Amino acid sequence: MNFHEILKQKTDRANAVIRAYLPKEEGAPARLIEAMNYSMTAGGKRLRPILMEEAYLIFGGTETVIEPFMAGIEMIHTHSLVHDDLPALDNDLLRRGKPTTHAVYGESCAILAGDALLNYAYEIMLGSFSQTARPELAARALRLLSLKTGIFGMLGGQGVDVENDGREITADLLQYIYEKKTAALLEGSLLTGAILAGASDEETAVVEAAAKNIGLAFQIYDDILDVTGTCEELGKPIHSDEKNHKTTYVTLYGLKEAQERAEALTRDAVERIRLLRGDTAFLVELALSLTSRRV
Amino acid sequence: MNFHEILKQKTDRANAVIRAYLPKEEGAPARLIEAMNYSMTAGGKRLRPILMEEAYLIFGGTETVIEPFMAGIEMIHTHSLVHDDLPALDNDLLRRGKPTTHAVYGESCAILAGDALLNYAYEIMLGSFSQTARPELAARALRLLSLKTGIFGMLGGQGVDVENDGREITADLLQYIYEKKTAALLEGSLLTGAILAGASDEETAVVEAAAKNIGLAFQIYDDILDVTGTCEELGKPIHSDEKNHKTTYVTLYGLKEAQERAEALTRDAVERIRLLRGDTAFLVELALSLTSRRV
Repeated sequence: MNFHEILKQKTDRANAVIRAYLPKEEGAPARLIEAMNYSMTAGGKRLRPILMEEAYLIFGGTETVIEPFMAGIEMIHTHSLVHDDLPALDNDLLRRGKPTTHAVYGESCAILAGDALLNYAYEIMLGSFSQTARPELAARALRLLSLKTGIFGMLGGQGVDVENDGREITADLLQYIYEKKTAALLEGSLLTGAILAGASDEETAVVEAAAKNIGLAFQIYDDILDVTGTCEELGKPIHSDEKNHKTTYVTLYGLKEAQERAEALTRDAVERIRLLRGDTAFLVELALSLTSRRV
Repeated sequence: MNFHEILKQKTDRANAVIRAYLPKEEGAPARLIEAMNYSMTAGGKRLRPILMEEAYLIFGGTETVIEPFMAGIEMIHTHSLVHDDLPALDNDLLRRGKPTTHAVYGESCAILAGDALLNYAYEIMLGSFSQTARPELAARALRLLSLKTGIFGMLGGQGVDVENDGREITADLLQYIYEKKTAALLEGSLLTGAILAGASDEETAVVEAAAKNIGLAFQIYDDILDVTGTCEELGKPIHSDEKNHKTTYVTLYGLKEAQERAEALTRDAVERIRLLRGDTAFLVELALSLTSRRV
């Protein structure tokens, strides 16, 4: 099988795992649960659970405990998208070519659905401790993931991003936002998989540095696609950064240098990944594919 | 010391514990952290951490692990208040006599501050596992608390409440909303304390039933205060239920029967609490005080 066939298989697997962990749409809060599940099944690359499982496999993990963590990180990610799309934040009516959650279910329901997704992620990951012979690793992985999600990780990055909406910002602050808003949760993905599989502190340090660079490259490439992509490919409006006077890697450094930086970060990440024990071939190809994607 | 002096002491203790666990307002997301801390220090009875520690003491708990859980449950509670006050939900500009978080920091910041509070609660509680000789109890307590917080607990109750805003609802649905929106997190408070202290399954079942009745009585008494209280005492507008055509225990059953039900639920809770081992005197008085309070 070539890379794209393997990726398709792994995406199908991630989708099946996610589906298995969605709450049932029944009882009094059925509509709120429907809104949660709508946002969870409205497409997406499933990059975070795929990265997480790949790290788990590289370090020899064999238990089903990885599955609730895969579903959990996608719920955390989706929670952030649902709230990011709200009228008070990005005010987006379209994501991945489909109406956003608040566009379908209303604003109050979307706020609570986002809250419920974040909390449900913790519910299912905390429920997984009985699925593993090493619950202390699950506790360590979950603690780490909570830090990458929170005020000193993704949510902090979102806060700074929103606070500076429509303003020109410095290169340092842009770097902070990208490291936190995007890279932190990708670090959380790979680190959680590695920790659950029993990787050593030295190994998780390598994983974290590689993940950070993958995350930065991924976000820079998002800036590039906003200029070079088409609305049909991306399922969302293009040139939105320019319209919103948003500082990006492209506005700061130009298209060519942004592309070069994304590629350099990816090369660095790939070199680190190749240092790891285990079969890293797919993870290397996946990292490389993220800076040549069209969506 | 009389009950009110002891309560004052325990409230001061809860406030000190909460303050010790607030994130430092520094770094790039300082403003978002300021919004989190503003909402956490804008007053409040600290009922949930006080109940939690009381259950912990009744069952003989002696470790500091209770402290991050006390701060954590108050953060979960405050997260729900911050989001509940938003324009898309209750649209309240005043809580406990102070401007609500979105009134001070804006809507986008309040949405993210609520998210960050919910997540930070998990961060600090997950960080507590090293503070206890029995981390498996901390994991069990946190899992239980996550269920009481989530879609089948508090957040589910909020969702159903918001969905039926401005509509007349049945007695059954009102009961569901009160059990979930209010009672669930009070159950979580007492249960978490009991589990952390090593209470048996039989004991936690008694605690859960007592907590549920305390929670229901507390919410019914909120309905009563909306009719009988003053704006100055409550720090928020009164008669808001009537203005919003909200179905409450008072609109369904009348003031007298609502009062009788709250008292009967409290009596039942007190009887159950008295069955527990340990010194339950303060918890009994606290339960009784909740249906004779003025705020």
